[in-house]
Amino acid sequence: MTLIEPRTLKGFRDFLPAKMIQREKLMETAKKVYRRYGFMPIDTPALEYLDILTGKGSEETDRQMYHFIDAGGRPVGMRFDLTVPLARFAAQHINELGTPFKRYHIAPVWRGESPQDGRFREFIQCDFDTIGTTGVVSDIETALVIHELLLEIGIEQFRIRINNRQILTGLLDSLELKHQSTHVLRALDKLDKIGPEGVAKELDQVGITTDQSNRIFQFAQIQGPHQQVLSQLAQLLPSSQLASQGIERLERVTSAMLAAGVPAHRFEIDVSIARGLDYYTGIIFETTLLELPRIGSVCSGGRYDNLAGLFTKQQLPGIGASLGLDRLLAALEKLGRLEETPRTAEVFIPLFDPDRINDYFALASMVRSTGISTEVFPEPKKLGQQLKYADQRGFLVALIAGARELDQGLVQIKDLRTQTATEVAWKNQPETFLTALKSVLGLNSMLS
Amino acid sequence: MTLIEPRTLKGFRDFLPAKMIQREKLMETAKKVYRRYGFMPIDTPALEYLDILTGKGSEETDRQMYHFIDAGGRPVGMRFDLTVPLARFAAQHINELGTPFKRYHIAPVWRGESPQDGRFREFIQCDFDTIGTTGVVSDIETALVIHELLLEIGIEQFRIRINNRQILTGLLDSLELKHQSTHVLRALDKLDKIGPEGVAKELDQVGITTDQSNRIFQFAQIQGPHQQVLSQLAQLLPSSQLASQGIERLERVTSAMLAAGVPAHRFEIDVSIARGLDYYTGIIFETTLLELPRIGSVCSGGRYDNLAGLFTKQQLPGIGASLGLDRLLAALEKLGRLEETPRTAEVFIPLFDPDRINDYFALASMVRSTGISTEVFPEPKKLGQQLKYADQRGFLVALIAGARELDQGLVQIKDLRTQTATEVAWKNQPETFLTALKSVLGLNSMLS
Repeated sequence: MTLIEPRTLKGFRDFLPAKMIQREKLMETAKKVYRRYGFMPIDTPALEYLDILTGKGSEETDRQMYHFIDAGGRPVGMRFDLTVPLARFAAQHINELGTPFKRYHIAPVWRGESPQDGRFREFIQCDFDTIGTTGVVSDIETALVIHELLLEIGIEQFRIRINNRQILTGLLDSLELKHQSTHVLRALDKLDKIGPEGVAKELDQVGITTDQSNRIFQFAQIQGPHQQVLSQLAQLLPSSQLASQGIERLERVTSAMLAAGVPAHRFEIDVSIARGLDYYTGIIFETTLLELPRIGSVCSGGRYDNLAGLFTKQQLPGIGASLGLDRLLAALEKLGRLEETPRTAEVFIPLFDPDRINDYFALASMVRSTGISTEVFPEPKKLGQQLKYADQRGFLVALIAGARELDQGLVQIKDLRTQTATEVAWKNQPETFLTALKSVLGLNSMLS
Repeated sequence: MTLIEPRTLKGFRDFLPAKMIQREKLMETAKKVYRRYGFMPIDTPALEYLDILTGKGSEETDRQMYHFIDAGGRPVGMRFDLTVPLARFAAQHINELGTPFKRYHIAPVWRGESPQDGRFREFIQCDFDTIGTTGVVSDIETALVIHELLLEIGIEQFRIRINNRQILTGLLDSLELKHQSTHVLRALDKLDKIGPEGVAKELDQVGITTDQSNRIFQFAQIQGPHQQVLSQLAQLLPSSQLASQGIERLERVTSAMLAAGVPAHRFEIDVSIARGLDYYTGIIFETTLLELPRIGSVCSGGRYDNLAGLFTKQQLPGIGASLGLDRLLAALEKLGRLEETPRTAEVFIPLFDPDRINDYFALASMVRSTGISTEVFPEPKKLGQQLKYADQRGFLVALIAGARELDQGLVQIKDLRTQTATEVAWKNQPETFLTALKSVLGLNSMLS
């Protein structure tokens, strides 16, 4: 028989346990933080009718979409993000859900991107959104969730960059560039990557005058403490009502962030960020890791006026953001913040005497009853080989017992990190034994 | 502009928060139990090369598979289970992974089933497997994981039905029906559904004599306490070495289950279960809910000799089982064991005075710092309307404060279940306030 070569498609990935444990941990942290703010989980199908998905992102997402005709003759597509499915979902269920509707959605999406860019064709998105309200409370809450997410993930050196599309729009209005806004915002978005000269060149190409360009740069270069930036903006755009509204909202958001305990150095008003996507209309966020600023934003989002206009006449304003799971994991790896040997179980029980399996399982049950993870080795190999396996997998403690020890109800607790061991009674003294085990594991005995 | 009708594909489902919270809880419970036994997470792509997937399940799974040609001209398919991807994964990575390799995988799979049967075209599988060992330890561990899973999910009235394919094969050998085994096992699997007459008819159709049928039924009707069943089997199949091995392994597994603390009434040896899938070769499991026996097994699996024979020459024996998430959720709903108003946040802060947003966020931060989930309402509606929202969403407690209370650093803690309220100081006395809040929430103040 000819063997089939085991292989994965280009741009798709297998996750082995070491990486998957870290991914799961990150997703669990995101869930925990989202839930702490009252966001609730939803799920939608991987496949949607093609007309639900096409023309909703950009030309690029249309081109990259996986789509086909199913066995029933229906044109279907695999979702390329979680925002279009949310729009469809909200339009379909909003009366049942009620507003404000706060949801999170952590799920894979698919895009046939060019894999040589280090991009993947399947990746997880971790989105949270608040639908059905224009209130500033949701803007503040979104900023607080981003802040708490990063902290819970174990990152302290980061800065949330905040802007408001209303200010940008006000500026473009005052320059009579309203109809060029998409071009200007896309060019401005590249400021970090291609520098002022690059942006100037792009602006020139779409027919923007040097004078207009200069005013845009003058604007984009405003920086400093929040209050100072805000008053400079007010001076620069005195006649734009839209800009004034945008400035006022930034004032309220930043002041509430301080009131909620976010240190001032963790955020800044940065009028140069634009977030290319057309649908943002209000406050926008990006999050930069100060130790790795070049990798780009790890958590971004913003406010939009109307989520589901293609599906319903009901106006559904909202705000949301998305955690960049892959980017963040790559960053944590670069920064050396990932555990080297991630494990799921701490305690290892070698199968020292194959005739005493029942004793090993009774011992394992006793340990597991306290919530401590335990594995019994399944093969009657030499003890040395079994302990080598335990060491490679990152177990912390081995519980070793042969026939003699088992007959006397004893077991050796061996700390695999220090290679020290103590013999204790377990069979008739579960409490003393478990206290000793926890102390070797470094667990507070109050925990249990 | 014409609106696009928001709709989902037949057989596909949206999960609204109430249902999704319950699904997430079940998946989290499965992960916790799997990890407690040292199983580690992996993930594989939703899309695979088509030749990886075809011909690995049954004719039915081939027919039901979603497949297409991607933009690069590659024939690709969406996975229809997690076992074929595991086989490909193990063949590809086993040298890096080492054995025994214990993995869990919780992920969606897709099958174009006929939706009128109440089946879904997208559903989550929750698998755990141990690869690379034939040891009885893994058989025992699989049984213990199933037992603990059901208990942790909150079910106590269940029975794990255990059999061993070696015994069935031994019986068929002794009846000279070796080459008919697939037909016999498939027919036998339907015993619960179509009764002995139905099975007899199916056996007759494939040319099995009445005498052979009778011996099969005599065998399938053996029941009683473990020890009794095992000795009856030994008497019935004295000359089959394979059957004797199978009986001995069942003895060792059931005895270890008792040693590990599983009550005898929670499992039984049931020689009538066959698990139609051809690849099982050893012990097999099904799990019946005693209050809803007709819904079928909620957790099933078994031992196989060779997982990845189509992908590698390396022999990879293993054992695993799968939790039926959808079936279990439907069962829990029928049994009234699901919370009526699942929630993610417990504490609700109405936006009583829109000018005091910063105070509400300072208060919310104080509460969240203890890990308690809190939501600030985003719209300045009437207090009554805001509290109605809180009630509908299942919040337990509201923290109500107007300008007067805030000026004095006070807040009203209102228990939304009993409608009783107490006013306490929070601003300068976080500890007293948080203790009072926890006491109303019914949390042990030791928790924090």
